[in-house]
Amino acid sequence: MRKAPSALSALGRRTEPPPISWLMHLTLSRPRLISLAAGFIDNESLPVRETRLLVRELLRSRPGAQAALQYGTTQGDPSLRRLTCAYLRDLDGAAQANAAYAADRMIITNGSQQLLYMLTEALCDPGDIVLVEDPSYFVFLGIVQSRGLRARGIKIDNHGVDLADLERVLTSLKAKGALHRLKFVYLVSYFQNPTGITTSFDRKAGTLRLLRKYEKAAGHPIYLLEDAAYRELGFSTKDVKSSLAVRAGSDCVIYAGTFSKPFATGIRVGFGILPGPVFNSVLGIKGNHDFGTSNFLQHLLARALESGAYRKHLRQLHETYALKAKIMARAIRESFPAEVEWEPARGGLYIWARLPRGMHSGRDSRLFKRALAENVLYVPGELCYADDPARRKPNHEMRLSFGTGSGPEITEGILRLGRTLRALV
Amino acid sequence: MRKAPSALSALGRRTEPPPISWLMHLTLSRPRLISLAAGFIDNESLPVRETRLLVRELLRSRPGAQAALQYGTTQGDPSLRRLTCAYLRDLDGAAQANAAYAADRMIITNGSQQLLYMLTEALCDPGDIVLVEDPSYFVFLGIVQSRGLRARGIKIDNHGVDLADLERVLTSLKAKGALHRLKFVYLVSYFQNPTGITTSFDRKAGTLRLLRKYEKAAGHPIYLLEDAAYRELGFSTKDVKSSLAVRAGSDCVIYAGTFSKPFATGIRVGFGILPGPVFNSVLGIKGNHDFGTSNFLQHLLARALESGAYRKHLRQLHETYALKAKIMARAIRESFPAEVEWEPARGGLYIWARLPRGMHSGRDSRLFKRALAENVLYVPGELCYADDPARRKPNHEMRLSFGTGSGPEITEGILRLGRTLRALV
Repeated sequence: MRKAPSALSALGRRTEPPPISWLMHLTLSRPRLISLAAGFIDNESLPVRETRLLVRELLRSRPGAQAALQYGTTQGDPSLRRLTCAYLRDLDGAAQANAAYAADRMIITNGSQQLLYMLTEALCDPGDIVLVEDPSYFVFLGIVQSRGLRARGIKIDNHGVDLADLERVLTSLKAKGALHRLKFVYLVSYFQNPTGITTSFDRKAGTLRLLRKYEKAAGHPIYLLEDAAYRELGFSTKDVKSSLAVRAGSDCVIYAGTFSKPFATGIRVGFGILPGPVFNSVLGIKGNHDFGTSNFLQHLLARALESGAYRKHLRQLHETYALKAKIMARAIRESFPAEVEWEPARGGLYIWARLPRGMHSGRDSRLFKRALAENVLYVPGELCYADDPARRKPNHEMRLSFGTGSGPEITEGILRLGRTLRALV
Repeated sequence: MRKAPSALSALGRRTEPPPISWLMHLTLSRPRLISLAAGFIDNESLPVRETRLLVRELLRSRPGAQAALQYGTTQGDPSLRRLTCAYLRDLDGAAQANAAYAADRMIITNGSQQLLYMLTEALCDPGDIVLVEDPSYFVFLGIVQSRGLRARGIKIDNHGVDLADLERVLTSLKAKGALHRLKFVYLVSYFQNPTGITTSFDRKAGTLRLLRKYEKAAGHPIYLLEDAAYRELGFSTKDVKSSLAVRAGSDCVIYAGTFSKPFATGIRVGFGILPGPVFNSVLGIKGNHDFGTSNFLQHLLARALESGAYRKHLRQLHETYALKAKIMARAIRESFPAEVEWEPARGGLYIWARLPRGMHSGRDSRLFKRALAENVLYVPGELCYADDPARRKPNHEMRLSFGTGSGPEITEGILRLGRTLRALV
């Protein structure tokens, strides 16, 4: 049969099913599989009781209930914005008057993912360049691919982005006359997806200094997009200040946060803080996407923040995840071959494991297939690398999530994976 | 001060604040204003009691609550899709086996607005053409403008799109060699925003016949995008079948529906039924936008559909809106000059009024300003017309909404507007 001609746009043709759907499909088709791949959060610690209470309060008075069930504004509920900004200011130890955290610079979105998408729409034409960590969050790389952008990977170490490598890439773009195509640097700055690494405050400040240095040659600001999705999933109370706290940097910083991961992924609410020109454009785009995130969910979260239920829930969450991370670390220590490099997690949902260089972990590798035969699934590391002509994609790593499984499932999953690894090393 | 150079993309630069935000700003800044402009739904009939009950049931069992608070799939909750498809089949009187209503062709979205947006992304490159009713839904026109598309207006009469005019435009595009840029026809088919007109089933079938006739010259399918946002807001039980029911038409039909308007606008859930190639592309785009609409809201609506609460709420809604439409009609009859043409509403939220040709209603008109001085706001008709070089935008109409105001507010608003009109006729 002749293939029907298509009416799809260039974007429509480019957009591929994300790797996540293929991984989910594998999970659903094998009921006995243990998935160390899913980025889901812990089921047992979802705020069931808290949500029951919050909804009851929210719907108790008729005017309150009506406000929650009616349209809100495109920008988002003023109370939720005010409370979220105060919360961020508090985390960053900033003064109340600090304009970088003003509620009128904030837009509420459908998870922080929507902010990443709209921002890319507002800033990037096809062919434009973004810099990403090497490796980075694979759903963001899907946006880059779908929108026809070019990504360049920047090396990272245990303190985050490697500033020397960042400057090397900036210089090389400048030399090629391509700097005007560079729009932003994307950093997943806390307990990074996939490596678990947290970017130090110095590296954030250093990044902003470098971007400032090259913006004249670019002919426009080069933004730092800080994706703080995992910020609140640290196991200790120690926090690193965000790039909004870099003095005189905030007009080049876009901060993306979310309540999905720390509160409930079924309640998809995220937010962004954006500088002037980008703010206006993203707000217009948000108007076209959906003219505003569900008001009901926003009112629910405002109440969670205001009542203290949110912070209380976070404290419980830290205990749960710290324990699960410990279980995974112990299992890895016991069953992975010594050649595998990895670090215990200090927060977030992931452990990143580096196999010996020659040992492939990709979708077509013997390892991946054997692991699947053992009914255990991981995210192949290569999925987390941007298409960058300057280097080959490393293919010897894996992302292991301790978010979804129970303690015994994590132990058993790692055991199976260890068995597979030892058979192949 | 020198204007700072901008890093915005072409789309980012094009995207303008929607007219809705300017209208909302006017409303918020004048506390005594009666807005006949807002497309909000009736506050008093919001399902407060129903939502209380539904949420209580939803969160009663721990596993049920956990499922609602966890991530779902990008495509949307299987139960909600199954129930919605069964509901649509029922409305259209279609057989259970009818593949046009299969749940695997459905994607759940953040209101139907998100579907309109993603569809435009999947199908249209900048410069591509879409056909819209003259006048049409202004937020959709905002998408067209932002994405750099060209719109052509098609005349409508009391039965919907004028097929002779549609064919005239198709012929003219063909003659200009521009037919390959035409991707879809957008019809708001029930109680249209802004005119209140419902498209007859014959006109839908006729539209599909015409599109089929010209698709060879176009080189690809030309889709019919049926936006059924107001379908369930008819005051009688009489319904018109959707274009999915046109025999052998469904592979060119994209159906967009929503639970926002009939249930609660604060619970922003919509849906689309899409043919194969478009489905895959839109699903990939949805993955990049947000990888799935809030599972919590989806589970809530599935429960509303399954329990019968949804249909029961609709019946109450019809009574409320029918009464408010009658109040508005009576007030118009009593206080508008005889020269103004309008029709009583049979559903939806709007009455469309045509003033004598020379009498302008636009943002800069004497009428608009005087009405504002009288503390009453309407949507200027010109905002509802696409930029189409083939005609000047009519500037003598107004959209009046009976959705938001109470009975006395509607009466008073129309009285003020009537006074303004009589002073100027």
